[in-house]
Amino acid sequence: MIQLRCSTCQQLYPADTRAFRCNCGGTFELVGLPAFDRRAIDPAGPGLWRYRQFLPGNRHWAEVTLGEGWTPLVLTDLLGQAVHCKMEFLSPTGSFKDRGTAVTVAMLKELGIDAVVEDSSGNAAASLAAYGARAGIRVRLYVPAHASPAKLRQIAVYGAELVPVDGPRSQAALAAWQAAATTYYASHYFNPFNLAGLRTLAFEIVEQLGWRSPDHLILPVGHGTLLLGAYQGFVELRQAGVIEHLPRFFAVQALACAPVFAAWSRALDQVAEITPGTTVAEGIAIAAPVRGAALLAVLRASGGMVVTVDEDEIRWGQAALARQGLYVEPTSAVVAAAVRKLDRVIAPGDLTVVVLTGSGLKSERV
Amino acid sequence: MIQLRCSTCQQLYPADTRAFRCNCGGTFELVGLPAFDRRAIDPAGPGLWRYRQFLPGNRHWAEVTLGEGWTPLVLTDLLGQAVHCKMEFLSPTGSFKDRGTAVTVAMLKELGIDAVVEDSSGNAAASLAAYGARAGIRVRLYVPAHASPAKLRQIAVYGAELVPVDGPRSQAALAAWQAAATTYYASHYFNPFNLAGLRTLAFEIVEQLGWRSPDHLILPVGHGTLLLGAYQGFVELRQAGVIEHLPRFFAVQALACAPVFAAWSRALDQVAEITPGTTVAEGIAIAAPVRGAALLAVLRASGGMVVTVDEDEIRWGQAALARQGLYVEPTSAVVAAAVRKLDRVIAPGDLTVVVLTGSGLKSERV
Repeated sequence: MIQLRCSTCQQLYPADTRAFRCNCGGTFELVGLPAFDRRAIDPAGPGLWRYRQFLPGNRHWAEVTLGEGWTPLVLTDLLGQAVHCKMEFLSPTGSFKDRGTAVTVAMLKELGIDAVVEDSSGNAAASLAAYGARAGIRVRLYVPAHASPAKLRQIAVYGAELVPVDGPRSQAALAAWQAAATTYYASHYFNPFNLAGLRTLAFEIVEQLGWRSPDHLILPVGHGTLLLGAYQGFVELRQAGVIEHLPRFFAVQALACAPVFAAWSRALDQVAEITPGTTVAEGIAIAAPVRGAALLAVLRASGGMVVTVDEDEIRWGQAALARQGLYVEPTSAVVAAAVRKLDRVIAPGDLTVVVLTGSGLKSERV
Repeated sequence: MIQLRCSTCQQLYPADTRAFRCNCGGTFELVGLPAFDRRAIDPAGPGLWRYRQFLPGNRHWAEVTLGEGWTPLVLTDLLGQAVHCKMEFLSPTGSFKDRGTAVTVAMLKELGIDAVVEDSSGNAAASLAAYGARAGIRVRLYVPAHASPAKLRQIAVYGAELVPVDGPRSQAALAAWQAAATTYYASHYFNPFNLAGLRTLAFEIVEQLGWRSPDHLILPVGHGTLLLGAYQGFVELRQAGVIEHLPRFFAVQALACAPVFAAWSRALDQVAEITPGTTVAEGIAIAAPVRGAALLAVLRASGGMVVTVDEDEIRWGQAALARQGLYVEPTSAVVAAAVRKLDRVIAPGDLTVVVLTGSGLKSERV
């Protein structure tokens, strides 16, 4: 039986709780998911639903799916490094968020929930708006008023209710938390069903590499849900005996907003809120990640680290990827800049995977 | 051995000819491709390269691929009709053109060609720019100066040389034809390698439906390369005994620019150039399709027809799809409007596939 467990005080909650975090303030994790088993994969299951045996909400996938998951893994050259690019920007709404959203919304169907709120800088909002439309669930979204017009347009077109909130990203979050008192809060960073969906990134990468684990996994980190979800997936693969080692996790942050780096570089166990600067990597401009301690633990356990990139490097990374035919948004381009910085960490012949999280068609200009 | 054959006078040309059409003015088709055979499919081949045994240029696919093909087929409800949506807008550059471009560029590698020209209203140009960047082939593009800014931006970011041409779409074509005298013309509508790649749409739809053929296939038609490529694929599937019947092909055109409809409604065998009006469906605003006679023949042979939709209907179609979580450009939305018009042709229980050709993130606004 699936339950929610507080990662701080270990208290258990039922799967249909309306609480979005523990009374003690801790974040939820999911317990009771079936163990990974290669024999339980359904090769005929579309997209990430080939792994539906390990996913919550799987009785409702057909009413919810927009074709998410099983994105291509393309081997290309980046500065003389052979790098596998996980093409998450080809997801149904143009970002990796669709993995988590599809699973969350499938679970909402199972729980009989027909209206939700959420806050997002853009991609998560667009994703939830789309899946809400698909599944017949009303969605109200609190978004920063300064978010990319292309993203706001995309959200509006799906028919979600849009509430622009002035001020920094955190103000939109606060508005959603207040609304969550009376409505289900389908938060992409609090909700553990979202993390359960993001595990499939690990399953896919390993399966697409012929059941090998990468040596290095490089991905953008704001709240770090992608990193945490993927890590959980790799741990399950190792527990199942499918892989022998985990990849080293490299979390890439924009220098202008790098709370995880600030904690990492001082060898802290917790991530403190910072005063954010401005960055084109708006999707990871998160001043206070809600699972900071867990992020630091993953980086430490996997032998990875935090890499920061400045605005020029992000622009350079976006152009470098485009010159390989890969048009991603600045938030995603941070990984290309990180590859350049990691040239002494990545040895020739290493198996390196970068996650290209969001589409360049969403960004206003290069 | 693969050769080019004139569809008018039957003259044969070698695969590496620099001519883009026959001396008689006829268009080329490809002869000598291997026959379809289910046993020759490689399920481990990424994207459309699972069918690489039937594709030209297949020795170079790994240097060229951006993950094109094997797009999701999503069953959804459209006005009470159960419709399978082929999600071509999730292709690497956001449109179905990537199928044809990937195969064309793989063939360019085989022929040792390192510079090309092309003309396009946007999607084909973006696609060729991306694959040219990926494969190290210089690309010069003649585009209408009035094309969508988002599309022009996308083309530029890949590093292609962009030549805006004032006047109607046909002026850009004329400029490219002139340039073709001295450079290889990688035309998405003349080049038969492009059509060879588009055949994979049929292979995928039939495989994804469990080796069944749809009853109805509804798709936007400008030059009609997608329709012709898909038709060729279905014919091959029938010849191989994989399917028993072909789908009925429904070609959707914008009322403001509907030369195929004009010919169809007068039962002509040829499509004459028309004076185009303005339409938001810019990707199919083609006043003089170069393979008009072939289009009419397919519609007739398959028991299909041409459907026209006006600007209001296109807007309606775009909104209707978005309210199902599917954000496509106006050019693609014409199929939703057509489904509504075909409510007396499509019977309940029929197997209907609509092709969603291009991403809504490319269009300026809804």
